[in-house]
Amino acid sequence: MISYYFKRAYDIIGSSFISINCVQRRLLLRAIDFQKLGRQYKATVEKQLASLTRHDEPETIYKPIRHVLSAGGKRFRSALVLLSCEAVGGKARDALGAAAAIELFHNFTLVHDDVMDHADMRRGLPTVHKRWNTNVAILAGDELAALAYRALLKSRTQRLQEVIHVFTEAFNQVCEGQALDQEFEGQTDIYLNDYLRMIGKKTGCLIVAALHIGALMGNATKREVATLCTYGEHLGRAFQIMDDLLDIIGDEREFGKTIGGDIREGKKTYMLIKALERAKGKDRLLLHLITAHHKATTAMVNRVRDIYHRYGIIDDAKREIARSTRRAQRALTPLKTSHAKDMLFWLSDQLLERTT
Amino acid sequence: MISYYFKRAYDIIGSSFISINCVQRRLLLRAIDFQKLGRQYKATVEKQLASLTRHDEPETIYKPIRHVLSAGGKRFRSALVLLSCEAVGGKARDALGAAAAIELFHNFTLVHDDVMDHADMRRGLPTVHKRWNTNVAILAGDELAALAYRALLKSRTQRLQEVIHVFTEAFNQVCEGQALDQEFEGQTDIYLNDYLRMIGKKTGCLIVAALHIGALMGNATKREVATLCTYGEHLGRAFQIMDDLLDIIGDEREFGKTIGGDIREGKKTYMLIKALERAKGKDRLLLHLITAHHKATTAMVNRVRDIYHRYGIIDDAKREIARSTRRAQRALTPLKTSHAKDMLFWLSDQLLERTT
Repeated sequence: MISYYFKRAYDIIGSSFISINCVQRRLLLRAIDFQKLGRQYKATVEKQLASLTRHDEPETIYKPIRHVLSAGGKRFRSALVLLSCEAVGGKARDALGAAAAIELFHNFTLVHDDVMDHADMRRGLPTVHKRWNTNVAILAGDELAALAYRALLKSRTQRLQEVIHVFTEAFNQVCEGQALDQEFEGQTDIYLNDYLRMIGKKTGCLIVAALHIGALMGNATKREVATLCTYGEHLGRAFQIMDDLLDIIGDEREFGKTIGGDIREGKKTYMLIKALERAKGKDRLLLHLITAHHKATTAMVNRVRDIYHRYGIIDDAKREIARSTRRAQRALTPLKTSHAKDMLFWLSDQLLERTT
Repeated sequence: MISYYFKRAYDIIGSSFISINCVQRRLLLRAIDFQKLGRQYKATVEKQLASLTRHDEPETIYKPIRHVLSAGGKRFRSALVLLSCEAVGGKARDALGAAAAIELFHNFTLVHDDVMDHADMRRGLPTVHKRWNTNVAILAGDELAALAYRALLKSRTQRLQEVIHVFTEAFNQVCEGQALDQEFEGQTDIYLNDYLRMIGKKTGCLIVAALHIGALMGNATKREVATLCTYGEHLGRAFQIMDDLLDIIGDEREFGKTIGGDIREGKKTYMLIKALERAKGKDRLLLHLITAHHKATTAMVNRVRDIYHRYGIIDDAKREIARSTRRAQRALTPLKTSHAKDMLFWLSDQLLERTT
């Protein structure tokens, strides 16, 4: 995401540097600053991850782990840890262990979720259970969770127990969220509130935990913690609905996953729930069929995409993402002005246009 | 195990109370004391486990978790936590959270291992992936690990960070051990040292961690920690070799698992490694066949059992268990005399005759 926006900002500056006004120019230069810092953070986290996973054996654990991590990813959650720490006056370097922990933990959930969701591709590479097998994926996932705690324990803070507590609660919630996601697959009577509760646990919780932990690392006040957690809640919602959206309107090469995977698995996405509320006749029948049988063909995926467009659901999703993003940004207001606060604001903006 | 030995002690006392001498009688009454305390510990740990897992939803997580825990089990590892704490002067009740954590973690490994080892039965009940499916087993396992950390954080101790560190290192080691176990399955060039390294990680490590954590809860000195860890290392070895042995000479109903499961999976057990060293001709061929193809029939399992008997490998295994148990008991010497120390001594003795 970061390099994509860097390129985008550069394209604009390169092509129309003379015609844009001063304010626009300042904002663009600021964006370039953020891109640069984002790249620095990413590089430092990558180094941490490499050092935590460089063991030679057992190679059926560490090879797949390095395979997963080598696929890159935005390292968005670890950036949140570092920025949250800085936004309350802490030093990003003190939160590096925690940032790596959040990233390792996130990858643990991806490896296990991919098994459960029968996903073949992740970030443009074959998933662990496809490249190796299910046993390897189970164990590599387990080890990623173990490594996450190991990384967390390397953090330099007086509030390590609080940090471990927040991390552990997120661990519990994320598992529960994934279980709800699986349970919802075969059901047609799932409503928006159920969906929001599910994504709050499955996706939102780790994003909130990243910000909470970052804040603790920076020795935040209770109010600062609450502020950053509220930002995280809205951001998490925007992030997950965007993820749902990219599954249907994304570019397979950029997204790195098979498009329509959610429809094939009968996943309850923001769009499917809205569509089940609104669709009539044959459209409704198709949606029920997909929910009950999980055997959508490419033609069916295309028909569902068409339904989403016809009933205005794609636009609805985009509006909901924009609304949640604005709420996230507003939530930041009580924080003291800082470069990190501005970057958190900017980061949430990027979400509106992310493609991966 | 505990009720079995209680019954056994009672049988002896009941039938020959008059004919046994005073020392024997004192030892037997002591054993009954230990049984009673063991039952009390078990009941307290069960209560903790029930309170930690009584959530209603998502039921695809908590139902399988309660299914696993309802099957009972010896709660041997949690007893080690409590006894270790008491053996260094601590109060068992302060270590209850940690005892539950070790038990939850152990059950996490069982649920995932059963998927990987295609095991149908555990403690006389169908395994989670058999009763539900693989997805449920992966998630229920993950949640058990999360609950384990939650339980650990409830412990009352000034040394919680040390405790979490030991627990996390065990988490890492156990995953590595299980990976080695899986890797060894297809290989014929595995020797005793490889096996001992593997079981040290897969089984020994959690037993050592239970004792280490118990000791920390009791605010042990470095020397006391080292003493209890050494006891744990030997005990862990005896325990795993006994487990290997029960897979081939155990009673299916008592053992609660399908007999010969290790042979069917081509597992490198103490006996298989010894047999691969010694067997000649057709016997050797059969062992290689089993190692390479993992498709042993019941007739083949019986032939392997016969090989183990003919080459004296069953006796060897028993001798190795007895030797490791004696070493474990000798390791306890530096500890101050206490009821808990005596019970640790006694517990390791029970291993020699365990059937489950």
